[in-house]
Order: sequence, then structure tokens, then C-alpha cells
Amino acid sequence: MYKLDQTDWGIIVLLNKDGRMPSAEIARRLGNISARTVTNRIEALSEHGIMNVRAIVNPETVGYCVMADVFIEVEPGHVREVAERAAEFPQVSYVACATGESDVSISLRVRTIEELFDFTTEKLGKIPGVRRTQTYLLPLKIKDLDSWLPPGVFAS
Amino acid sequence: MYKLDQTDWGIIVLLNKDGRMPSAEIARRLGNISARTVTNRIEALSEHGIMNVRAIVNPETVGYCVMADVFIEVEPGHVREVAERAAEFPQVSYVACATGESDVSISLRVRTIEELFDFTTEKLGKIPGVRRTQTYLLPLKIKDLDSWLPPGVFAS
Amino acid sequence: MYKLDQTDWGIIVLLNKDGRMPSAEIARRLGNISARTVTNRIEALSEHGIMNVRAIVNPETVGYCVMADVFIEVEPGHVREVAERAAEFPQVSYVACATGESDVSISLRVRTIEELFDFTTEKLGKIPGVRRTQTYLLPLKIKDLDSWLPPGVFAS
Amino acid sequence: MYKLDQTDWGIIVLLNKDGRMPSAEIARRLGNISARTVTNRIEALSEHGIMNVRAIVNPETVGYCVMADVFIEVEPGHVREVAERAAEFPQVSYVACATGESDVSISLRVRTIEELFDFTTEKLGKIPGVRRTQTYLLPLKIKDLDSWLPPGVFAS
Amino acid sequence: MYKLDQTDWGIIVLLNKDGRMPSAEIARRLGNISARTVTNRIEALSEHGIMNVRAIVNPETVGYCVMADVFIEVEPGHVREVAERAAEFPQVSYVACATGESDVSISLRVRTIEELFDFTTEKLGKIPGVRRTQTYLLPLKIKDLDSWLPPGVFAS
Amino acid sequence: MYKLDQTDWGIIVLLNKDGRMPSAEIARRLGNISARTVTNRIEALSEHGIMNVRAIVNPETVGYCVMADVFIEVEPGHVREVAERAAEFPQVSYVACATGESDVSISLRVRTIEELFDFTTEKLGKIPGVRRTQTYLLPLKIKDLDSWLPPGVFAS
Amino acid sequence: MYKLDQTDWGIIVLLNKDGRMPSAEIARRLGNISARTVTNRIEALSEHGIMNVRAIVNPETVGYCVMADVFIEVEPGHVREVAERAAEFPQVSYVACATGESDVSISLRVRTIEELFDFTTEKLGKIPGVRRTQTYLLPLKIKDLDSWLPPGVFAS
Amino acid sequence: MYKLDQTDWGIIVLLNKDGRMPSAEIARRLGNISARTVTNRIEALSEHGIMNVRAIVNPETVGYCVMADVFIEVEPGHVREVAERAAEFPQVSYVACATGESDVSISLRVRTIEELFDFTTEKLGKIPGVRRTQTYLLPLKIKDLDSWLPPGVFAS
Repeated sequence: MYKLDQTDWGIIVLLNKDGRMPSAEIARRLGNISARTVTNRIEALSEHGIMNVRAIVNPETVGYCVMADVFIEVEPGHVREVAERAAEFPQVSYVACATGESDVSISLRVRTIEELFDFTTEKLGKIPGVRRTQTYLLPLKIKDLDSWLPPGVFAS
Repeated sequence: MYKLDQTDWGIIVLLNKDGRMPSAEIARRLGNISARTVTNRIEALSEHGIMNVRAIVNPETVGYCVMADVFIEVEPGHVREVAERAAEFPQVSYVACATGESDVSISLRVRTIEELFDFTTEKLGKIPGVRRTQTYLLPLKIKDLDSWLPPGVFAS
Repeated sequence: MYKLDQTDWGIIVLLNKDGRMPSAEIARRLGNISARTVTNRIEALSEHGIMNVRAIVNPETVGYCVMADVFIEVEPGHVREVAERAAEFPQVSYVACATGESDVSISLRVRTIEELFDFTTEKLGKIPGVRRTQTYLLPLKIKDLDSWLPPGVFAS
Repeated sequence: MYKLDQTDWGIIVLLNKDGRMPSAEIARRLGNISARTVTNRIEALSEHGIMNVRAIVNPETVGYCVMADVFIEVEPGHVREVAERAAEFPQVSYVACATGESDVSISLRVRTIEELFDFTTEKLGKIPGVRRTQTYLLPLKIKDLDSWLPPGVFAS
Repeated sequence: MYKLDQTDWGIIVLLNKDGRMPSAEIARRLGNISARTVTNRIEALSEHGIMNVRAIVNPETVGYCVMADVFIEVEPGHVREVAERAAEFPQVSYVACATGESDVSISLRVRTIEELFDFTTEKLGKIPGVRRTQTYLLPLKIKDLDSWLPPGVFAS
Repeated sequence: MYKLDQTDWGIIVLLNKDGRMPSAEIARRLGNISARTVTNRIEALSEHGIMNVRAIVNPETVGYCVMADVFIEVEPGHVREVAERAAEFPQVSYVACATGESDVSISLRVRTIEELFDFTTEKLGKIPGVRRTQTYLLPLKIKDLDSWLPPGVFAS
Repeated sequence: MYKLDQTDWGIIVLLNKDGRMPSAEIARRLGNISARTVTNRIEALSEHGIMNVRAIVNPETVGYCVMADVFIEVEPGHVREVAERAAEFPQVSYVACATGESDVSISLRVRTIEELFDFTTEKLGKIPGVRRTQTYLLPLKIKDLDSWLPPGVFAS
Repeated sequence: MYKLDQTDWGIIVLLNKDGRMPSAEIARRLGNISARTVTNRIEALSEHGIMNVRAIVNPETVGYCVMADVFIEVEPGHVREVAERAAEFPQVSYVACATGESDVSISLRVRTIEELFDFTTEKLGKIPGVRRTQTYLLPLKIKDLDSWLPPGVFAS
């Protein structure tokens, strides 16, 4: 496992707030480090897959206001295929295989309740191996995945 | 609603792949546009909340290998409070209020199964208003939220 | 039980299509009957509670686009009270006491998903005796209650 | 969206109580408006689909005393077909497509418990694509759909 | 409906306690009635299906100690057939068609837990149209069907 | 355990069909046995609790047309008390303690759906320790408990 | 049934603590008995299947840290076959046929969550007759089967 | 982690079949090893907790014929306490904390169905913090925990 030091975490925390912050500014804030080193560290962190710096679109602002979770029950032996087929749809923002009540758990972003209905009945429901879908609206999001940092890093 | 043109979407798509791409490089790839305009557009998109460019940490690479969904049933009338209390824990990467079977739906990232158990029984289970928690392991993630772009943008 | 004859049913079927049809027009269509008799019959049918002629508002056309069913589990012994309290809210278009999984079954008409969430968590969830609410969106209505006529009447 | 003024709402509220009230009487009650204008407004409201004035039969008074909800689980991909087939039966007074536990939600009006059983097992259960039906008796109706008016209208 | 008088109910209550009580004894206890009339009344009550006098075997005393309820989910459209096939097995002491979670509800009387398992998996599970069986042990019976009399009769 | 011979079973089978059959007639049908012996055997079978001969009232014929199962979830530690309280109501024809989903399982016989609702909400729901009741209508009974005989007896 | 005396139970309790304890040591601790008798008794207890002395491996110490229960729903009529097929996999440490919600109940021991997912989806899910699997992680074991002794033996 | 070699596994496999096999016999079967080394290895494996050699009683042979799983739902925040209290009862042969539907999962061994009922209602149901127990009979055990060896060891 790639070993992160205090400087790496400092860079990550700053870029988690503002991914466009120039290396020079990061160097200035952290102190005792050159802009070049910051740039090198960012490249290393990306190459090792520790972090990705990327633009995340806020769906509400572009008209995708309806957020829902769909839990899919799958014919035994087809879980991974169904998960991969579901992931191909652009309306699907998240796909994971689950244990327990459902077999595949997905998140959707659509514009209207009609789109939600059409997508689940006409697209998801017709993936071979899907036995049942259950759709639950998520009327309020309190915290989002892109803000996740390991516990303890905040205190660094 | 802020109105996006083709150029805005071009910038978003490039930054969704590589959030550190310099404005000059973006301008070069899109053509017919200056680096300064790109910088201005990025600022406008961020200020209007259309997109955030930020570093997203890959939990597995820093030892947070266990991913789970927890569905929380709440005493009626306390849904929002419980959701907000849950969101304060750094182990919690996602919180939404749901309709249907559960009242609050959260995602966790922890290091071990023991941590998962201790966190759900000792932390979540003790938030006032929580009536029941059900924890489901997610052994495989196929698609993640940070790659979401509105359908149709890929073709642009 | 009030005994309906063929004429009564003829009047009901016509008024079920157009509640404002004048008695003279009904008399003309049914034949062998005076406008005065039609008027008397309509009054009798209303007085005996056989039918109500009334304006029914189509919620979508006035901005109430979100339709949902809420199933309420109630502390034993408080079913009727909860049902009556729920019926007082103007957002609630239908309330019935149920057997089986839920104790009270209601329908809602609201403008947005946010209103749906606020109403169920802040209003319904705070009625004393409510133990749990489960909300299911109804994205598509195919047939509505106001068109109901007893089977066989169509053939008359 | 058709824009309603205070007069339109006044007409709707009066017709929601008594759909046969003559235009002259409505004009008299609202004041400052002619019977002709009332008639024109009623026609416009009907033509724009804002409201329907129609006779609604009270099932209990004509022997249809048993009211039930049936929740139908459908083979994925056949939701709309099943909903449309169910809507053709005169015993079925309401059909909506649902998210969550069931796929299609219907209401029934029948004369006896035997009819309820025969209809669900022999008619609904034999619609192609129906996987499971669950029937719940509704022994008490507290509020009905035909009385719905948008919140706030009462105060006008 | 056959109209019962006070004498009929007197006879029924006595025979519900002891079905072998001679007509003369019944006449003596009720007073003002001949043994012949009692015999005629018993015949009439039996012929009209009001009551059956019959020997009911107590299963525990003949080695049938394990009592269980089995809830059967059936392919839609086959409910009655499955119920009738289940009723043919002598181990099955009760069969009813149900609404709600299960389609057919049966009671079993067997000698051992092994017999219970073999019967449900090898006999019930192989009736065509059975989709799922769920078996629940009934470790304690508090009141049995054969003691039922209409409420109020006790006071006569 | 009381040991039954072929003659005992012969008597039981005949009395299970007709509980009023005179001992002399039973003796004649079985052959090789006196009426006195039959009478003695019947007494012995009753005294040892092997069988009861009693009048069973057919509820439909006396206006008790609605049959339902109610599954009761009970506060842990109060199962037996709740079962005993439920058994005291004359509307309750059967009470057993169950394992699995519900804690107490009862059967009801009432005259109308309104009585069913009133009884479950006003009587059962108010027994201390009852946490939840679920009521399922039984629209069709195929086989009843009073006809039960141990498997194999039919062949005797 | 083989009849155990106080000496047999004394031997069992000692061997339940330490299965390698020599017969001479057992004889010394119990007193009034020769090592030869102890050896004979152990052989008799084993031959009659009363107890097995065997090495039980502690899975955590050899890298099998993930413990889970899997509940399998089976096509009716195939319960025993599926149970026997599941028992052949070395990852499966326990298999029982169940009544109630699931048909076959198994325990698993694997090294990682990935193995858990692969095993349930690729191996269990592909056994013919398996309709559905539900997997629940067991993050903490408090008491294990190999310590079981009949109640009361502790006091001997 | 203690590192096991081929010899250790050879010893474990033999003792898993017969825990009383003398070291000399084990040495003879494995070859190239002294009885003394075998004894030392067994001691080391036990001290490191890799394996326990112990007598396991077969419950059926001593009259404990009824085997059941009980799933316990617990007030949030009391899971571990309830698990520990349950583990103190000698009837309880297995206790684990679970994720998903239930919070604590236990196995029972009792003599009769009555004992099963009394134990779950009078003992388990009265542990503070227990909200609900669900009991499922296990009529057939196909494979037991004490035979578990890590996959691949069989081939050694």
C-alpha cells in the first residue's frame, strides 16, 4: 500500500475543498515545500489511484431534480451481469452489488417522476435476469460521497 | 436556471476526466476559445454551483476497504435530525432521507468488519430517535457517483 | 335500499359523463319522460345519497403534480383517531382504514417532492399514535375513482 | 398552465358542493358577475381539463359494500400493460402504477367477499404478467377523492 | 335463513357441551318440551346445516403432537386447485383461501418434526402451482374451533 | 398413552360422521359387539380425552359470515397473557401461540366487515401487551378442523 | 436410548474442556475408577454416537476471518437436494433445513468479503433449484456450538 | 499469524477425525516424525488457539431433539449486552451478532416443543432490550460446524 505522509494529506484536504487550487498556492499554505514538489505529489497520488481530481456536476442545477434508489432482485447467478448492464445507462449514477434483501443497488438521477417511471419499467425492468425492482425516492440529500475523507484527517 | 452552452459542457466533460487540466490545454482542445475565457467559465460554473472540481479519495487505497449501506428506521417526526446527526460522523460518506421502507439511508466506509459492527451498534444505534438499523455489505462497486454527467452530454 | 329503475340508471350514466347536462336534454335523450320528472329523479337520487353531482378538480392542471400513497402503522387502539386527524389536512385526498400490513391508508396530492417529504415527516409523522409511515410515489394514474359505475350499467 | 382567478375558484368551490347549481344562482352568490359569464367560465374550466362536473355513484347505496385495495407485483417490463388490462374491469374503480413494494395498485368495489375472492383469483390473477396479488380489505372510508380541492382554496 | 328460537339455542348449547346427551335429558333440562320435540329439533337443525354433532378426535392423545400452520404462495390463477389438492391429505386438518400475504392457509397435525419436514417438502411442495411454503410451529393451543358459539348465546 | 384397538377406531369413525348415532346402530354396523360395550367404549374414549362428541355450529347459517385470521405481535414476555385474554372474546373461535412472524394467531367469526374492524381495533388492539395486529380475510374455507382423523384410519 | 450415568457425564465434561486428557488423569480426577474403565467408557460413548472427540480448527487463526449466514429460498420440492449440494463446498461450515422464511440455512467461513461475494453469486447461486440467497455478515461470535453440554450437567 | 506447515495440517486432519488418536499413531501415519514432536506440535497448536481438541456431545442422543434458530431484534445500543445475556443460558448453543434483518442470531437445543416455547417466551423474551424474537425450527441438519477445515486441506 502506498504510504501517505502529512504533506500528502495536506494536499488532499486542500484539493478536496478546491480542486483547481494552483500548486503554488498549495505550497504557500502548507509551507516548507516547493510548488514543484506539490505538482509531483499530486501526480503520484493520482497515478497510485489514491485520489482523483475531477469536476462533479450538481444534478439539480442542470434539471436532474429527481433522485432515487432502485433495489434490484436478480435471478441467482446473474448478479454481476445485471450490475454491469445497469451501469451503462447514463441515468444511473451509482451501482453496487449488495448482500441481504437486494442483489444490486443503484442510484438514479432523472428530470421528472415520469422519466423515473419510464426508466425503471422500460429500461431496468427489461435487462435480462432482473426479477424485481423496487424504487424509493430520495427527497433530501444531507451529505454526498465526494466529501468523504478518512476519519482523523480533519484534525491534521 | 443558469443556461449552459456547448462550451460549458465541453469544459465540464474535460474536467470530469481530469480536474487539474490547465485552462490553456482545455482551450486548445475545444478550439476557438482563449485560456482566459476557459478560466472565467470555470469560475462561473463553480459560483453557480453547476459543478465542483475537487479531489475525491479512493477509500480502498487508504485502508477503508469495507463499504456498507445502513437503512435507519426513525421515530416519526425525527427524520431530519437523525439524518443530520448521522452526517456528522466521518465514517459516513453519504446520507439521504428516503421514502418507503427506511427513513434515512446512509453509506459507510470503514477499515474492518469489527469497525462496521462497533460503529453501527455504538454510534448510529445511540443517536436519539433511531429505532432500528439494518446494515448491508456492498462487496463490489461497479459505478460511482463522481462520474455522473447528464445523459446526452457524452455525445456532445 | 332505494330501488333504482332503468330511468334512474339512464340519468346517472348521462350525468356521470356530463354533470351539467340540462334536465330537458336528458329527457330528450332518454325519451318517454318529461324534463320535470328528470329533475325530480335527480333530486331523489341525491337526497337518498345514491349519487352526488359535483365538480372534481384535476390536480395536475392546478400544479399538484405529485401523487403518493402513504401507509400508516398506528399504535393499537388509535386507528380511527389517526385516520380522522389525517383527513383534516387539505393535502390528503383520500383516507381509509385498512386490514393487513398497514392500519391507515391515505392518498396525497402535493406540488413537489420537497412538499411530499415535509408533509409526511412534519405533519403526518407528528400525529399522536402514528408509529411509522411508508410513502410510495404513484407516477402514473390509469383510472380514477370518479368514473366508477356498477358493472352491468354500461350495457343498459 | 391555465391561469385561474378568484372567480374561477369561487365557481369551482360552489360546484364542488353542488354540481347542479344553476349559473344564475352561482352568479348571485359570487356577486358582480352575470350568469352568462358563469356559464362561459364553467365551459372554459371543463375544456381546459381543470375540473369535471359529473355524477359520482355512492357504491354502498347500490349494493357494492366491499371495498378493497389490491397490490399487484408484475413481471418486470409489463407494468403498464397489466395496469391497462386491470382498468378494463368495471369492478376496478382506481388504477395507478406505484414505486416500491408493489408495481400496480388498484381499488375494487364488489358486493360480497365471495365476489372479491372470485374476482382477484379468476380475473386479476389471470392477466398475463401478474406475478402476485395481495388483497387488503378497507373496512372504513373516512375521506374520498372527489372532495379534493387544492389547499388554501377553502379560505378564499 | 332458518329462524332459531330460544329452544333451538338451548338444545345447541347443551349438545355443544355433550353431544351424546339423550333427548329426554335435554327435554328435562330445558323444561316445557317433550323428548320427541327435542329429537325433531335436532334433526331439523342438522338438516338445515345449522349444527353438526360429531366426534372430534384430540390429536395429542393419539400421538399427533406437532401442530403447524403452513402459508402457501400460489401461482396466480391456481389458488382454488392448490387448496383442494392440499385438503386431500389426511395430515391437513384445515384449509382456507386467504387474502393478503399468503394465498392458501392450512393447518397440519403430524407426529414428529421429521414428519412435518417430509410432508411440507415432499407433499405440499410438489403440488403443481405451489410457489412457496412457509411453516410455523404452533407450540400451544389456547382455544379451539369446536367450542365456537355465536356471541350472546352464553347468556341465553 | 391410552391404547386404541380396531373397535375404538370403528366407533370414532362412525361418530365423526354422525355423533348422535345410537350405540345399538353402531354395534350393528361394526358387528361382533354389544350396544352396551359400545356405550362403555364411548364413555372411556371421552373420559380419556381421546374424542369429544359435541355440536358444532356452522357460523354462516346463523349470520356469522365473515371469517378472518388475525396475527398478533406481542411485547416480549406477554405472549401467553395476550393469548388468554384474546380467547375470552366470543368472536374468537381459535387461539394458538406461534413461532415465527407473529406471536399469537387467532381466528374470528363475525357478522360484517364493520364488526371485524371494530373488534380488531377496539377490542384486540386494546389488550395490554399487543403491539400490532394484522387481519387477513379468509373468503373460502375448503376443509375444517372438525373432520380431522389420524391418517390411516380411513382405511380401517 | 443409551443410558448415561454420573461417571459418563464426568468423563464428557472433562473431555469437553480438554479432549487430549489421558484416561489415567481422568480416572484420578473422578476417583473410584480405573484408567481402563475410563478408556472403555470413552470408546462406548463414541461408538454409541453420544460424543465425538475431535480437533476443531479456529477459522480466524488460519485466515478465515469472514463469517456469514446465508438463507436460501429453494424451488418447492428441491430443499434436500440443495442442502446436500451446498454441504459439499468446503467454505460451508454448517447446513440445516429450516421452516419459515428460508428453506435452507447455511454458515460460511471465507477469507475476504470478495470471496464471500464470489462464493454466493458464483457457487451457491448456481446450484439448480436455488431461487434466492440472502447473505448476512456475522461480525461477532459470542458462543460457539462446540461448547454445548446439556443443561444441568454443569452442576454434576 | 502462526505459520502452519504440512505436518501441522497432517496432525489437524487426523485429530479432526479422531481426537483421541495417540501421538505415536499420528507419527506412524505421517511418517518421518517422532511421537514426541507430534505431542509438541499438538500443544503448540492448542496454545496458539489454532485448534481445540474437545468432546462434542451429540444432542439427539441425550434427548435434546429440538433444534431451532432464534433471531432477536434488539433496542438500538444494546446488541452486545443482549447477546451476552443470551449466551449464559445452557439451552443456547450458539450466539452471534448479525447485520441485516436481525441483531442477534442464536441456536437452541431443547427436548420438546413446549420447552422451546417456554424458553423463548419466558427466558429470551424477558432479557432487557429484546424487542422481538422470531423462532424457526430446524428439522434437519446436514453438516455441522465441528467438521470445518479450511478449503484445500483435504487435498493435503
